[in-house]
Amino acid sequence: ESRGYPYVMKTRKFGYDGYGNMTIKKKNNALVGWKRFTSGEAPRELMAEEFVDFSKELAVMVARNRRGELALYPCSETVQRNHICHTVVAPAVVADDVQQQARDIAVKAVEAIEGVGVFGIEMFLTSEGEVLFNEIAPRPHNSGHYSIEACYTSQFENCIRAVLNLPLGNPNLIAPAAAMMNLLGERSGPGVPDSVVEFMKHDKVKLHLYGKKDSRVGRKMGHVTALGDSADEALGAVTAAASDLLW
Amino acid sequence: ESRGYPYVMKTRKFGYDGYGNMTIKKKNNALVGWKRFTSGEAPRELMAEEFVDFSKELAVMVARNRRGELALYPCSETVQRNHICHTVVAPAVVADDVQQQARDIAVKAVEAIEGVGVFGIEMFLTSEGEVLFNEIAPRPHNSGHYSIEACYTSQFENCIRAVLNLPLGNPNLIAPAAAMMNLLGERSGPGVPDSVVEFMKHDKVKLHLYGKKDSRVGRKMGHVTALGDSADEALGAVTAAASDLLW
Repeated sequence: ESRGYPYVMKTRKFGYDGYGNMTIKKKNNALVGWKRFTSGEAPRELMAEEFVDFSKELAVMVARNRRGELALYPCSETVQRNHICHTVVAPAVVADDVQQQARDIAVKAVEAIEGVGVFGIEMFLTSEGEVLFNEIAPRPHNSGHYSIEACYTSQFENCIRAVLNLPLGNPNLIAPAAAMMNLLGERSGPGVPDSVVEFMKHDKVKLHLYGKKDSRVGRKMGHVTALGDSADEALGAVTAAASDLLW
Repeated sequence: ESRGYPYVMKTRKFGYDGYGNMTIKKKNNALVGWKRFTSGEAPRELMAEEFVDFSKELAVMVARNRRGELALYPCSETVQRNHICHTVVAPAVVADDVQQQARDIAVKAVEAIEGVGVFGIEMFLTSEGEVLFNEIAPRPHNSGHYSIEACYTSQFENCIRAVLNLPLGNPNLIAPAAAMMNLLGERSGPGVPDSVVEFMKHDKVKLHLYGKKDSRVGRKMGHVTALGDSADEALGAVTAAASDLLW
């Protein structure tokens, strides 16, 4: 607290989708956060991080097998809404050296923990063009879902290859660009959209429904992915298609 | 027989992989074929067709729903060995007007029978550049397996969309070219290859194993698919990869 406000209070582990972190703007917030995270049966260890006024959020998926072989996915840009991943565009529309910085950081992070499997490394891009490590998700990750259709080998297949110590598959994009949009529940109701007929008229867009029994506001119910000749084209396609799904 | 030899004796229905047809070069062959196809509990109706000295075999997959909407896959070239599909390349490396002829014939064939579902239309290309209808397979077909990875919507998804009378998905290729090679049993033994480790080092190639318990010489055990910037590149990729699978 001697370093001033705002800062971010985080649980060291098991945070996701905004759970397990809180922006502390004044001393009173800190007490609320402290209570929220340390009460309950299993009090959690906390850390404090400087608040980063980022211009973009970046993510890189990395697969690593026991022999230390790596498959490095493109650096993508992720957009969160209410702390939940909303869209992912790959590759991120950033300068080449930013792509490279992000991929270097991702490799260092996975090698530092000698990780085996698939990892999502989340980063901030500051307005000065600096890339800062944020968090590591030790598993197939929302920021890599686009890889199912858009890459020669998906994050899921490479996760299995990695833990079996098999040669890793090609993580590169099949098309120039891809975009993914999460489908978030808009009400309490059934876990399937009212109709997919209008959605199906959208060309080149793939629908994934997670088969959850019920939808709730903000709950991840599925996602859509599109390939494109550019990030804009792919993002336009998923945006238009997702808007034709009625929940 | 008054029209001379050779001709092809075919069962009217249920022929596949060389079963149900026989090239008749002289009268003696005809008696053998007659016995083979008409003996047994359910004698089968036969037809005779002029033997076509083709330069290539072409195939087009067509999806059609109950409203009559069509999704037309590219015209592919199929290569058979011992009457069994060996490789498929899409699009076929033929002149544009041949592509168009083949696609026109495919549509006519499916509309003639008011087909609903997915259909493989097999054709001959003669050395004079003429496209001749050969057979229709009223189902997802080996000549469309490439569509799983290579098209925006696979023949299997479009088959389901068609029979449910839903809008059909985009049948176009994601990449400039694709190739598929069948994996045929080379011995009597288990239904899985000895190892897939060497295979996995091949970039951009997808393996499908059908989970059959046993392999036999010539039995379809699986297939591999590759995308490429050209037919040659894709065909080279599946050829190299398939040769690293040991059965």
